[in-house]
Amino acid sequence: KDIGRLIVQGTDQHGIVASISALLSEAGANIVSLDQHSSDPEGGQFFQRTVFSLPHLPARLEELREKLDARLTGELGLSWQLVEARQRKRVAVFVSKSDHCLLDLLWRQRRGELPMDIVMVVSNHPDLAKDVRPFGIPYFHVPASGGKVEAERRHLELLAGNVDLVVLARYMQIITEDFLEAVGVPVINIHHSFLPAFIGAGPYQKAKDRGVKLIGATAHYVTKDLDEGPIIEQDAIRVSHRDSAQDLARSGADVERRVLSRAVAAHCEDRILREGNTTVVF
Amino acid sequence: KDIGRLIVQGTDQHGIVASISALLSEAGANIVSLDQHSSDPEGGQFFQRTVFSLPHLPARLEELREKLDARLTGELGLSWQLVEARQRKRVAVFVSKSDHCLLDLLWRQRRGELPMDIVMVVSNHPDLAKDVRPFGIPYFHVPASGGKVEAERRHLELLAGNVDLVVLARYMQIITEDFLEAVGVPVINIHHSFLPAFIGAGPYQKAKDRGVKLIGATAHYVTKDLDEGPIIEQDAIRVSHRDSAQDLARSGADVERRVLSRAVAAHCEDRILREGNTTVVF
Amino acid sequence: KDIGRLIVQGTDQHGIVASISALLSEAGANIVSLDQHSSDPEGGQFFQRTVFSLPHLPARLEELREKLDARLTGELGLSWQLVEARQRKRVAVFVSKSDHCLLDLLWRQRRGELPMDIVMVVSNHPDLAKDVRPFGIPYFHVPASGGKVEAERRHLELLAGNVDLVVLARYMQIITEDFLEAVGVPVINIHHSFLPAFIGAGPYQKAKDRGVKLIGATAHYVTKDLDEGPIIEQDAIRVSHRDSAQDLARSGADVERRVLSRAVAAHCEDRILREGNTTVVF
Amino acid sequence: KDIGRLIVQGTDQHGIVASISALLSEAGANIVSLDQHSSDPEGGQFFQRTVFSLPHLPARLEELREKLDARLTGELGLSWQLVEARQRKRVAVFVSKSDHCLLDLLWRQRRGELPMDIVMVVSNHPDLAKDVRPFGIPYFHVPASGGKVEAERRHLELLAGNVDLVVLARYMQIITEDFLEAVGVPVINIHHSFLPAFIGAGPYQKAKDRGVKLIGATAHYVTKDLDEGPIIEQDAIRVSHRDSAQDLARSGADVERRVLSRAVAAHCEDRILREGNTTVVF
Repeated sequence: KDIGRLIVQGTDQHGIVASISALLSEAGANIVSLDQHSSDPEGGQFFQRTVFSLPHLPARLEELREKLDARLTGELGLSWQLVEARQRKRVAVFVSKSDHCLLDLLWRQRRGELPMDIVMVVSNHPDLAKDVRPFGIPYFHVPASGGKVEAERRHLELLAGNVDLVVLARYMQIITEDFLEAVGVPVINIHHSFLPAFIGAGPYQKAKDRGVKLIGATAHYVTKDLDEGPIIEQDAIRVSHRDSAQDLARSGADVERRVLSRAVAAHCEDRILREGNTTVVF
Repeated sequence: KDIGRLIVQGTDQHGIVASISALLSEAGANIVSLDQHSSDPEGGQFFQRTVFSLPHLPARLEELREKLDARLTGELGLSWQLVEARQRKRVAVFVSKSDHCLLDLLWRQRRGELPMDIVMVVSNHPDLAKDVRPFGIPYFHVPASGGKVEAERRHLELLAGNVDLVVLARYMQIITEDFLEAVGVPVINIHHSFLPAFIGAGPYQKAKDRGVKLIGATAHYVTKDLDEGPIIEQDAIRVSHRDSAQDLARSGADVERRVLSRAVAAHCEDRILREGNTTVVF
Repeated sequence: KDIGRLIVQGTDQHGIVASISALLSEAGANIVSLDQHSSDPEGGQFFQRTVFSLPHLPARLEELREKLDARLTGELGLSWQLVEARQRKRVAVFVSKSDHCLLDLLWRQRRGELPMDIVMVVSNHPDLAKDVRPFGIPYFHVPASGGKVEAERRHLELLAGNVDLVVLARYMQIITEDFLEAVGVPVINIHHSFLPAFIGAGPYQKAKDRGVKLIGATAHYVTKDLDEGPIIEQDAIRVSHRDSAQDLARSGADVERRVLSRAVAAHCEDRILREGNTTVVF
Repeated sequence: KDIGRLIVQGTDQHGIVASISALLSEAGANIVSLDQHSSDPEGGQFFQRTVFSLPHLPARLEELREKLDARLTGELGLSWQLVEARQRKRVAVFVSKSDHCLLDLLWRQRRGELPMDIVMVVSNHPDLAKDVRPFGIPYFHVPASGGKVEAERRHLELLAGNVDLVVLARYMQIITEDFLEAVGVPVINIHHSFLPAFIGAGPYQKAKDRGVKLIGATAHYVTKDLDEGPIIEQDAIRVSHRDSAQDLARSGADVERRVLSRAVAAHCEDRILREGNTTVVF
């Protein structure tokens, strides 16, 4: 408790680290861990994540924010974000019929591995309700049959003001650009990946038809370019000719749940800094 | 010594394994290892690799081939290949300026890890001659400046009858369909791979720009569709935002040499069976 | 359906493969996949796993067993096992308080990834009953407080005739040699592993104190030498100085569940052949 | 050029980061990357690695060192080290007869992947001289036949004042505690690792006899407890029953060269901070 995280990024310039750490030090904070990265020795982009302890943090947040605003925004033109570590992210998980990613998130949260609260599960199918209910989490079934406009309207009603993150855990519906803008919080997606890529329907059969030996998964933030958003986490697993297309899909599911859980954990610990279409994951 | 390898493939039907093993048994051979795979329980493709020991194998090859021809080709309509394990594949390695894949092949061969003889190294650049000569292997510099037709004519002159395999170890020239047909031996290539794919020039920079966390390499047989041939081996390595595009290329080189050497070893041990655009690697 | 698996092992000699495949062929079976391994080209140990399809298999098992007995046991002195693939293994899972391995087995079975039936969960603690009951599987709480002799007597009552495999899924009680002999079915265990080993209590703290960068897990058959039995499956995961001893234990749990599930799957598909203190996993 | 690295460690206390970054900032330096770690939120050990650019760095080193001495040593009681990135470490590589680790180091250095100069190779055997000479590096053959005392006396003569690091690249002689004290520079060693451990002679055969599925390698600093020193880097590779003990040793060699090269690179980039028997690798 009394642990804060300060995320700063912007155009690099001399003295930023000194300025931030002096400010924290003057406030009486002790830096617990600090990761800093510049995209170039001179004139690049600056990224910093600082974890600090400060007694009576909740009472002192406002004062700290004012100072940060003056120094970082005002003088240095940087963007920053200050969060209390105890303030867990409120997360909505979207699913369709596949349970592997959802169950891994629910189980890890229960174990205390994911510093977040899953406040709702939303699905276009009723199937997974029975898996979610024992965890005491509300399950909202919003059928796709009423049309995408209507469904997304319902989604926004459910989400508005209630969540800090949306996780698409094998949610098989397209997300519109309108929804992305309206929802106002980051959206993380997971999908299978291959080297090389197999585009379009039936990717596992296509992969099998070319004798693929490695299948993977990619977690990324959703942008208007759908599956082209900045990558958070990736992993891969070995397969062989013994595996049917169905076996490949199962191995894929194993990688997907692992990659998505790691991506969500990194996000909830404020480890991910976005810049353009790339990420810095401290 | 006196170890033989029998590779059989074709349309699956009842009794193939029994037929092959009876034939070998009658000939006095002892089966050392046998890998068999059918693409479907009924009516699929059949693949078998059998390693056996048979005293005085060299003297008995012809007789064995006649029997295999009668039984496998004649009665069962299968294709087969019989090789002596002691008969090492003769290999030509094509390179440009990058040394990582070439050196790994040379080292592993010298260590006795690759059952093959590198009989020549061919390059469109003179740079790597000094690395090859200490291994006692001829280095042929065939400049690209004379035009592709002329260069490939020279290549075919050098290769004709002299090699059982061509390995493109980061050879940065396009191979024509005419060359592939004329050379008459398998050609293995290595190239970088990403999940997702980054197509065109500067793939490492593109990968960096999207925050890629995993880069890989794929070894495959070259077909007329260039980089679309059947995959032999793949692997991947983790990277992070700390890696520059140049660092990514270095990590890529590490994976490439490892993947290519494994693919070449599998080929030289007759472990790879091709079918359509896929492979079975026993 | 109508898929059988024939496992054969013993002292290698000429003609075994031919003999087996002729026998299956004469019976009208079609070999779907065959893996064979000899520990030496001459005079080693022989291992073979054959999967075949044979119409009306259940009705023909007895006849087949008689033939195998005559040919393999009688003439060749080999041991063998013939199983129907549709005959799922009946499994008892033993747990204490950790849920990660148990839940992974339950999920995968429900998904259809593990060809087995979990017929009971046995624990020295009541804690995990609530996780097991929704799966419709009986949970037996056998407290350790009554003494080991009494507890193992209860275990044997529960297991006798009811199970084909016992899986110790982070069961933190010592298994006695008497129990192992009495239970009469294989017992699979999972435990953490390190390179190098950290023996005794608090292994994760010891690993942290030496700056370990890789932690792993090993699944093995339990023998009277406890954790020294033949290894089935292993894997490892990267860690760093950022990880506390508790984080290491969490990463260890991730590897453990993955490794145990793969080991159990391999066992239930009759892929594992034991010989002395080693395994052949086809 | 003009890139410096400042390594600081000691007992954690409030304001260290601020103090260091203020000092660098006042000196006109721009922080390029900063990694900081505390072993505990309060009262633990403090570790920081800062990379900075400072125009005319060589001319300003002395002044900077004076300031660091006053502030870090004097006021805060911390230990620190300031190095110019352009100042490459001078390295002696010790080998016996195995070439895999040596060749990987030589090749990576030539490619520019390792910021160091290999100033000599020392061996108790003459065998590898021919591999080293083409790289223009002196090879000193110090036979073990003259006794350990005499050999180590020769080693110290060769090394005194000439090297910043000794790398044991599969050097099969015991290093005495006297040598370690006299040599006065860090010594890195590589050895095979297994989960679980197989102690004593013939580890690969022992591993095979227990059906091991994973073999690894560990790079560590040498301390008087020989192979018990702080771990720098580890990795592992999958093996199977198909691999003979000799194959396992070959796979082990592949992991060893990879792990040792990564460990040496990390050391030469001043990424490794030691504390007790553990390491922080930034």
